[in-house]
Amino acid sequence: MFFEGSEKKAEILIDTKKLSLLDDISDEFWSALVNCSQAKILSSIRNNYCKAFLLSESSLFVWQDRLLILTCGETQLVKAVEFFIKNLGSEVIKHLTYQRKNEYFANAQPSCFGDDIKLIHQYLPGKAYRFGEMDSHHNYVFHVENDFVADADDITYEFLAYQISEKASQHLTQPNLTKADIREFLRIDSLLPNFIIDDFVFSPYGYSLNAIHDQHYLTIHVTPQMDSSYISFESNLDLLALAPTLIDILAPKSFDLMSFNAQNFNAKLAQYIPKQYVSKSRVSTQLDNGYIVNFANYILPQTTFIEPIELDVLGDNHAL
Amino acid sequence: MFFEGSEKKAEILIDTKKLSLLDDISDEFWSALVNCSQAKILSSIRNNYCKAFLLSESSLFVWQDRLLILTCGETQLVKAVEFFIKNLGSEVIKHLTYQRKNEYFANAQPSCFGDDIKLIHQYLPGKAYRFGEMDSHHNYVFHVENDFVADADDITYEFLAYQISEKASQHLTQPNLTKADIREFLRIDSLLPNFIIDDFVFSPYGYSLNAIHDQHYLTIHVTPQMDSSYISFESNLDLLALAPTLIDILAPKSFDLMSFNAQNFNAKLAQYIPKQYVSKSRVSTQLDNGYIVNFANYILPQTTFIEPIELDVLGDNHAL
Repeated sequence: MFFEGSEKKAEILIDTKKLSLLDDISDEFWSALVNCSQAKILSSIRNNYCKAFLLSESSLFVWQDRLLILTCGETQLVKAVEFFIKNLGSEVIKHLTYQRKNEYFANAQPSCFGDDIKLIHQYLPGKAYRFGEMDSHHNYVFHVENDFVADADDITYEFLAYQISEKASQHLTQPNLTKADIREFLRIDSLLPNFIIDDFVFSPYGYSLNAIHDQHYLTIHVTPQMDSSYISFESNLDLLALAPTLIDILAPKSFDLMSFNAQNFNAKLAQYIPKQYVSKSRVSTQLDNGYIVNFANYILPQTTFIEPIELDVLGDNHAL
Repeated sequence: MFFEGSEKKAEILIDTKKLSLLDDISDEFWSALVNCSQAKILSSIRNNYCKAFLLSESSLFVWQDRLLILTCGETQLVKAVEFFIKNLGSEVIKHLTYQRKNEYFANAQPSCFGDDIKLIHQYLPGKAYRFGEMDSHHNYVFHVENDFVADADDITYEFLAYQISEKASQHLTQPNLTKADIREFLRIDSLLPNFIIDDFVFSPYGYSLNAIHDQHYLTIHVTPQMDSSYISFESNLDLLALAPTLIDILAPKSFDLMSFNAQNFNAKLAQYIPKQYVSKSRVSTQLDNGYIVNFANYILPQTTFIEPIELDVLGDNHAL
């Protein structure tokens, strides 16, 4: 059974003189927005700074002045973005970025990045970039073109693990796994002490976690099945510093690191990435909106031959 | 301007007691077959063993007892396979393999591998495999399941170069390039002495070459544009031994080697692949039809950061 773990992601910053997303907007609005993308809200947690919704496909975080939404699978996140613009008006939007990772099964997606940004561009003109090689892992980033300039301390990180070890995949696809089992496997207690945690175990497998503590957030989405395994971490905690632990847990054959505004990205790669991995691609720029964006893909060189994967000819191969 | 260079490929072996493809089948038939895939025949060459057609999207080779067809772009090769079966009957077919490489722009393809093999399976049941990782370069192979056993000396090779050097891309995308210019750049005279050659320069760029000599054949297809560059070589000459020359000419950031029935594949990798490349994936098996299939993907580790690629938001991004 294949599942497209790769996320689409949108971040919308708003003008708090006009609106507070956390206080002025009802849960019903967020539910309707999420439904537009063909996902739904499963549960939520909140603290003084943030409300975090766990979705049937990934997560929505709402702060006073911004929202972050990630959806995976065959959802169409751009429709949720359009819902936001149509209902709250483009004039409340200080800035918007829309991002999409390359997919395992691009053929099965209802739209591609090119389609999505044409739709957003009708409301909010912008620029778009590709980070990473076309024939390998890459991230598309669109941002609205206006006079917004990002704060240097608005720093976020993504760690995206592909092809996790057989051991990790087997562990995470066991029947009847509990939240506690998965939290223990992912060492959540030591990674996220003092965080409020909301998590969900999907059937037959798959796991999502939202965690918040003061102004910190972290979200994890686990697609554990061998062959299309993908585990994403997105946070304003320093995932470069946490990479050695995440790599130790998952032993992925390949992973991506991406950051908006990370300091010393290159030096931290040298410091934190285990030496057995080699870098296949490194991309860096400062966007017109001020964000310094870094992307790096790593692989684990292979020296032994493995058997091919046999496919079920009459099975559900519509996305291959 | 993007172009999908990755090929679909079919090889059909026939029972020469019932039919000779080279002698009994007219060019009109081949033209109609090629048209079914949405490609067309541009020209042809022949010797005593083989007729080789250059297509608007890749190549068709016809021997007494087999045909090999490759088509790229957004063609639908499986329709040509279906045309063959419907017109000549499945009873003349001793064996059939159908192969498809992962695409740069899977979203733009009219069908996926899973769709294609379901169609073939209606006429000729078979098995299917994936060589290479789902999140990286890979090849799908379908073969008919019957009592056919391949000759050990039926050996073919593929060398697939991705992300050729800026120098090679610039050279091959110059305006008004002639066949002679490209042959010189690719060192065709020294690689293929005594071969009959048929080649074509596409507009604004792109190049295809068919070459035959006695029972040897080689075909080259060049998609030179930076960002989706792809150059494929398919031959029954030993492309492992030629790899150092091809790598020297193209300096690709990544390449795949694939072979049916190559001897000492692993030892030859060690012998011929330059040490600066590292192997990202290695897959090997013996299929039920007797073919020993090997696949290896190599990358050139990157140590410096490059700028992202800026996209034209309103441009033709339908496949991204």
